[in-house]
Amino acid sequence: MGHLTADPEALLKRVRRIAGQVAAIERSIESRAECGAILHLVAAARGAMSGLLDEIVEAHIHEHLAKPGLSDDDRAKAAQEVIQAFRRYSK
Amino acid sequence: MGHLTADPEALLKRVRRIAGQVAAIERSIESRAECGAILHLVAAARGAMSGLLDEIVEAHIHEHLAKPGLSDDDRAKAAQEVIQAFRRYSK
Amino acid sequence: MGHLTADPEALLKRVRRIAGQVAAIERSIESRAECGAILHLVAAARGAMSGLLDEIVEAHIHEHLAKPGLSDDDRAKAAQEVIQAFRRYSK
Amino acid sequence: MGHLTADPEALLKRVRRIAGQVAAIERSIESRAECGAILHLVAAARGAMSGLLDEIVEAHIHEHLAKPGLSDDDRAKAAQEVIQAFRRYSK
Repeated sequence: MGHLTADPEALLKRVRRIAGQVAAIERSIESRAECGAILHLVAAARGAMSGLLDEIVEAHIHEHLAKPGLSDDDRAKAAQEVIQAFRRYSK
Repeated sequence: MGHLTADPEALLKRVRRIAGQVAAIERSIESRAECGAILHLVAAARGAMSGLLDEIVEAHIHEHLAKPGLSDDDRAKAAQEVIQAFRRYSK
Repeated sequence: MGHLTADPEALLKRVRRIAGQVAAIERSIESRAECGAILHLVAAARGAMSGLLDEIVEAHIHEHLAKPGLSDDDRAKAAQEVIQAFRRYSK
Repeated sequence: MGHLTADPEALLKRVRRIAGQVAAIERSIESRAECGAILHLVAAARGAMSGLLDEIVEAHIHEHLAKPGLSDDDRAKAAQEVIQAFRRYSK
C-alpha cells in the first residue's frame, strides 16, 4: 500500500469535492446557464484539480524518490512517474 | 441562452467523461491502489479539464467578445470573464 | 502604433530585467555553477516571462477586443492572436 | 560540478537563443511594432523558457534524485529544489 492510501480520508474528501464541482458544471449546462457562469465553474474545477496534482506529485517525490532506504528500481520507477506527470503539466 | 448551451450534447459528453475520470480516482484511492497509478489518473484528469477549459475560453472569445453586433457592455463583461479564467490558468 | 508602445518605458524596463535574468543563467552555466542554482534561476526567469505574457494578453483583450469602436476585422484578428497566445500557454 | 555543466555547450546554445528572443522583444517595443507581433514574440519566448525548464527539471530528477549511490542529504536537497521549481510552474 502506498503513502497516498495510508490515510486516504483527507484525499478522498478532496477528490469528492472535485467530483461535486464537475457535477455542478454538468447541471449548469443542462439548465442552460449563462456561458460566463459555466466558464467560471470550469476554471475553478481545473484549479482544484491542479492543486490536487501538486500535492500528489510532491508527496510522491518525498515518499518514492527522496526517502532513505528505497531500492534503485523503486527510485527509477518513481522518477519516470513524476516526469510524466510533470510533462502533462506543461502540456 | 449562451452559445455553450445552444448544442449542449457534445459538451455534456465531455464533462461526463471527466466525471468518470474523477470517479476512477476515487475508486483507486478506496481500493488502496499503487501511488504511481493514482498519480497517473490525476494527471490525466487534469489534462482533460485543461482541454475543456481551452475549448470553452476560445468559444467565449469568439461568441461574446469578437462577434459583430455585441453591445459594449457585453464585450466588457466577457473580457473580464476571459481574463479571470486566464489568470486562474497561470496560477 | 498599438497600446503596448504608447508608453513603452515600463514595458521595456520589464523586458530588460528578464534579459538580465537570462544573462545570469548563461553566466551560471559558464561558471559551472551548481545544478540547483541553475534550476532556480531558470524557474524564476520563466515565472517573470509568464507574468509579462499575462499582462500583455490582458491589455490586448481590453484594447483590441473589448474596446468600443473597433472594427469587426480588428476584433477578429485580435481574437485569433489572444487564442494563439492562450494555446501556447496551455502547452 | 553538476551534470548540467558537464557538457554545457548544448545548454548554452539554448539559453543564448532565448536571450536572442528577449532581445527581439525589446527591439519590437522600441520600434513601436504592432501589439499582435509583440504578443506573439513574448508567447514564443515563454514557450522556449518552459521547454528549457522541463529539460533541466527532468535531468535534475534523474541525476540528483533517482541516481544510485547518492547520499540521503543530496536526495533531500534535490527533492526540495524540484518541488520549488514545480510549484513555480503551477503559479
